[in-house]
Amino acid sequence: MPTLSVFKDVPLAQKIEGSLLKIYKQDDYPDKFFLAYKVCMNKEGHPWVSSVVPKIRMQISRDPSLNYEYSPAMGMKTFIQASLELLFGKSNQAIAQNRIGGLHTVGDSGAFQLGAQFLKTWRQNSQIVYIISAQKEFHGLIFQDMGFVVHEYSFWNSSKLCIDPHIIFDVLEQAPQGCVFVIGNLSNCKLTHNQWVKLMSIMKNKQIFPFFDIPSQGFITGDLEEDTRFLQYFLCCEFEFFCSQSLSRNFGIYDEGVGILVVVALNNELLLCALSQLLTFARSLWLNPPTMGARIITTILRNPTLQEQWKLSLKRVVENIMLIKEKVKEKLRLLGTPGSWEHITDQNGTHCYLGLSPQQLEYLVTKKHIYVPKSGRINFTCINTNNIDYIVNSINEAVLFSGS
Amino acid sequence: MPTLSVFKDVPLAQKIEGSLLKIYKQDDYPDKFFLAYKVCMNKEGHPWVSSVVPKIRMQISRDPSLNYEYSPAMGMKTFIQASLELLFGKSNQAIAQNRIGGLHTVGDSGAFQLGAQFLKTWRQNSQIVYIISAQKEFHGLIFQDMGFVVHEYSFWNSSKLCIDPHIIFDVLEQAPQGCVFVIGNLSNCKLTHNQWVKLMSIMKNKQIFPFFDIPSQGFITGDLEEDTRFLQYFLCCEFEFFCSQSLSRNFGIYDEGVGILVVVALNNELLLCALSQLLTFARSLWLNPPTMGARIITTILRNPTLQEQWKLSLKRVVENIMLIKEKVKEKLRLLGTPGSWEHITDQNGTHCYLGLSPQQLEYLVTKKHIYVPKSGRINFTCINTNNIDYIVNSINEAVLFSGS
Repeated sequence: MPTLSVFKDVPLAQKIEGSLLKIYKQDDYPDKFFLAYKVCMNKEGHPWVSSVVPKIRMQISRDPSLNYEYSPAMGMKTFIQASLELLFGKSNQAIAQNRIGGLHTVGDSGAFQLGAQFLKTWRQNSQIVYIISAQKEFHGLIFQDMGFVVHEYSFWNSSKLCIDPHIIFDVLEQAPQGCVFVIGNLSNCKLTHNQWVKLMSIMKNKQIFPFFDIPSQGFITGDLEEDTRFLQYFLCCEFEFFCSQSLSRNFGIYDEGVGILVVVALNNELLLCALSQLLTFARSLWLNPPTMGARIITTILRNPTLQEQWKLSLKRVVENIMLIKEKVKEKLRLLGTPGSWEHITDQNGTHCYLGLSPQQLEYLVTKKHIYVPKSGRINFTCINTNNIDYIVNSINEAVLFSGS
Repeated sequence: MPTLSVFKDVPLAQKIEGSLLKIYKQDDYPDKFFLAYKVCMNKEGHPWVSSVVPKIRMQISRDPSLNYEYSPAMGMKTFIQASLELLFGKSNQAIAQNRIGGLHTVGDSGAFQLGAQFLKTWRQNSQIVYIISAQKEFHGLIFQDMGFVVHEYSFWNSSKLCIDPHIIFDVLEQAPQGCVFVIGNLSNCKLTHNQWVKLMSIMKNKQIFPFFDIPSQGFITGDLEEDTRFLQYFLCCEFEFFCSQSLSRNFGIYDEGVGILVVVALNNELLLCALSQLLTFARSLWLNPPTMGARIITTILRNPTLQEQWKLSLKRVVENIMLIKEKVKEKLRLLGTPGSWEHITDQNGTHCYLGLSPQQLEYLVTKKHIYVPKSGRINFTCINTNNIDYIVNSINEAVLFSGS
């Protein structure tokens, strides 16, 4: 009798991502460009690494005093402390009150996986999640797979060509009492004082639980404090919230996939209860988080000179992004490309919307071998002095010769 | 109106582990010893690191050609390949047939978390798990939390004072058709040829799915191939199975928590389906596994000279463990301690049962400040020339002055 396979009813899973990159790699055309990389690129077209990181890697590898024992499930204490201070400021009152804590998380999904497991278990009366971000986020699937009802929205208004704060108010209006709001890069929204007051007042009234996503603090304005100032507003208004802080991108250690899940509670007692439950989930997920990334970050953040050098390297990245965007806008203006291109420089961060129609985007891919995602949100750090002219000319062509 | 906390109904989670270590640390007695560390200790009483690892850490940190991009969700391909070859042999037929694959997993729980999620989804008609190992394992909780019915057994027979293969046959008899068997360190069992044939025949008839745990290949006999020879038997008999291979302990890079989940299928097509589904779970769990540990291991395994040096360092560890056990046995014999102590040298590996009664173990902790777990399974690498006399004398005292 032939053995029946255990896997006989297991179908091939659908590919979720990476197909654009695959097509790009298979393209034989010499002047092909991929503008959809997730990581920040340097001027030479390689993944950016903060200039302070390589020497710290070497220093750590040479340090005979280091202990390579298992890290606790919570993670490295010094790393968590340094990350929280980065997010909220060293002399933050809520940190002093011991009502902010965190757990070391793994990879770009780790913090959402951990937070979602907690909410699934301890917020059973409300399993509805609204995800509002600049683009469709991968963590939507995490909540969905766990059985949450998930609604996703983008901040981008494609007709007005802007990051539109009104979208969040529209979503808030329809959201039911007690749901979870996963919000990406809120500081990109540039809300006015009145809008902040209104936002928090509605969220408070509806008892909405915020779960913020901070994928790359410092990459929005180049100023670490400025990028996360909105967290202070939520602290002041006595919100309790979660926050996924990834620290891989802003240090350029993508391969070490490191971050923390931040927990803000009304007092220390509540915080300790929440952290203790999160710890049981972390034990089942990985038991002991890998430490290399956390060691690099902690070494840099705890040394004022190194921290300054790192901040400077972040500033340079943001200045370079602004310069590229300015150049793209200026070149389009000189070419006389129809339309206003202010939206390019109005958006912050590495990834921004080009504001092109689906047909125009399709034209770039198929006719010009410029690989852009269907959303039209590209990584501007993939544009450099070697490819900017070809890319801008191609955008001009796409606008002129393709449907809007 | 005072704000009600989101966390108001969240209780403090029970502490699962670490309480013995906590009591040990709080003990002011100067001659206190902790014999329950999870990691292998060197002769100086520090966590063992393979002598080849530090120079590779340095080499990696200095390598300008390395790419620090996000690793794919599957993990580093070269690392997976090298790990599979370590487990099954380089010229293994099943590897050549492309019916063995793996995913890079994180921490000591990662592979079980991933495998359990797969079995939960794709083996819904049988959610019963038997865990048979040298001791109570943490992954019992992973399966339990996911809703499996979990039964746990230890290979240790405390009346016969031996690792008892009959236990697995007793468990097999009561186990229902189609259940999952999570089996730890099976090579410790020293089954006879006939017992192997019988074991596999029953498992095949009952369509039991094996999920092997290989926490530290090479630490049992000092010979990597010998330690996992039983996997070849299961391959030959056309079993499909999972295997959690941890690579943190046998390289001494505990802080990098690195391993793989191995999948063995009847053919390549079935393997690809299983891997594709596992990949979707890995994406939700961590998306991109940290690479430092995988880089260290791959560098060592792909270089024949380094691999030989590493194997030699493993052999030395095992020789040292055997020497410590011999010394403990001999010293007990010289003291005239009642009882046979052959079971100490009959057991393989770093962690072995002392074969003491609960009262005798309690005596060691409370009267002699020697911290041993309630199971009586201690880490023999925690015994060294500085503490062996005190420990052996204390065991003698415990046997003489405490209940058996």
